Amino acid sequence: MIERIAILGTGLLGTSAGLALRAAGFKGSIIGWNRGAEGAQIALKSGAIDSIASDPLSAAREADVTVLAVPIYATLDLMEQLALRLGGDHLVTDVGSTKLQITKAGMEHFNQTDRAAFLPGHPMAGKERGGAELGDANLFQGAVWLFTDTPGTVRSQRSRDLIEDWRGWVVALGSKIIDLDAARHDELVAWVSHLPQFVATALSALLEDQVGDAPELKDVGGRGLREMTRLGASPFSMWRDIAYTNSDAIQNALLRLEQRLAHLRENLRTPELRDEFDKANRFRKE
Amino acid sequence: MIERIAILGTGLLGTSAGLALRAAGFKGSIIGWNRGAEGAQIALKSGAIDSIASDPLSAAREADVTVLAVPIYATLDLMEQLALRLGGDHLVTDVGSTKLQITKAGMEHFNQTDRAAFLPGHPMAGKERGGAELGDANLFQGAVWLFTDTPGTVRSQRSRDLIEDWRGWVVALGSKIIDLDAARHDELVAWVSHLPQFVATALSALLEDQVGDAPELKDVGGRGLREMTRLGASPFSMWRDIAYTNSDAIQNALLRLEQRLAHLRENLRTPELRDEFDKANRFRKE
Repeated sequence: MIERIAILGTGLLGTSAGLALRAAGFKGSIIGWNRGAEGAQIALKSGAIDSIASDPLSAAREADVTVLAVPIYATLDLMEQLALRLGGDHLVTDVGSTKLQITKAGMEHFNQTDRAAFLPGHPMAGKERGGAELGDANLFQGAVWLFTDTPGTVRSQRSRDLIEDWRGWVVALGSKIIDLDAARHDELVAWVSHLPQFVATALSALLEDQVGDAPELKDVGGRGLREMTRLGASPFSMWRDIAYTNSDAIQNALLRLEQRLAHLRENLRTPELRDEFDKANRFRKE
Repeated sequence: MIERIAILGTGLLGTSAGLALRAAGFKGSIIGWNRGAEGAQIALKSGAIDSIASDPLSAAREADVTVLAVPIYATLDLMEQLALRLGGDHLVTDVGSTKLQITKAGMEHFNQTDRAAFLPGHPMAGKERGGAELGDANLFQGAVWLFTDTPGTVRSQRSRDLIEDWRGWVVALGSKIIDLDAARHDELVAWVSHLPQFVATALSALLEDQVGDAPELKDVGGRGLREMTRLGASPFSMWRDIAYTNSDAIQNALLRLEQRLAHLRENLRTPELRDEFDKANRFRKE
């Protein structure tokens, strides 16, 4: 069914998607576009894409399915550009980390008579650093791929077939699909993805102030410290749009953690400390 | 030089020490004692110890070096019991996670004419769960082993030789020795070990409240969430004594992290957010 795929943005996720599609047996063409020429060249050389398009629109017009793999605000920009120029036999999907604004834009600009279908998606996969050079055919193996499609959307039979086929490829890449409401998505990822990131950033920045001038002391912390600060390497550029488009939920999660840490701090020598450890143990119980 | 070692406490660290000594070529005898009979039996069967002593004193009296591998308050209790009953040709060392109280007790009860020497030690190695069954000959490979010995201590030549030999074995186990002052030790580990643990506990407990009733949603967080909560599995029993004996430094570290999280929360949409990410990136720069 899907014969031509356009990947707009050949960073870590876009390049990995191309490589993973090939590894899963996709035989059609994959055309890529990237804002920076170097990233596109790396993706081309790695085999993630077959050719490089001169602009996003020409790439998308040649494809059955267009995958937007750029930051959130760039995704919203591309959605506006593409919506009026793609016909009803086309599917656009994305991999953005927050879904409420993107899903709303999908309803506004797509999913109408003679317009392309839009399927909002979010693979829970990544690394603490980005870039085409880190592209990995196994990135989506064992990951959850969230979709926040809006029920009751009027779509052509061909659009519905493309969506089914794309979901099939997502499973073929090794991911487990979970469908959920876009607002619930943003609230959920604030807890299980954004909060851990901001905690790692805050902890790493604090420790840089405390022991950054004595690098040999970083070794002292061992595996626990390495794991708790690994995400501290994530660049601002990967998180700026997330912080902007999910501020309320992230603020709430951060405030709740601050309160929890204060509770621990005030109870280091009381039985409450045992209750917190026991509850944490339950979260980690297999 | 060291021919007989007593390991008092065959939990994760004690059992791993016995296994690692054997793997590193220690040919002498290793006698073990454990409060619970089952843990001693597991250590015996695994080859970490050669025999089981009926009580800690008889084990120590047969040995050149006694390794205390029990929780901190149990270590302090054993130190009092052993000090008056071991002669000046003996070395006692420990693996406790806080060092100020233990180092002071060492000066008070040991390191005097006709008494055993005491060398306060702390291998920065462990797992999020304890027990002899998790004993691991490679646990100390690549780890830092901290010593907080007190300078100017009067000791017999034999004590000094035993200390040199024990330090040699620590290196043979694959660890890197760092010597530092006990007060500085407790402040440092509050930042690089205790703070990460309490953050993982608080984050895990908070997430248990938020998403604990929907276990499939834990998968959504992926590797980042797993790493940031792995230490949440640590049992209270491993951390109670640490919380009690290093409360001030841990409280200070927790308060500072609360302030840092509040700063992030208030600046999700300001340029300050970039500064925090940049600083965190520096901490993780190789």
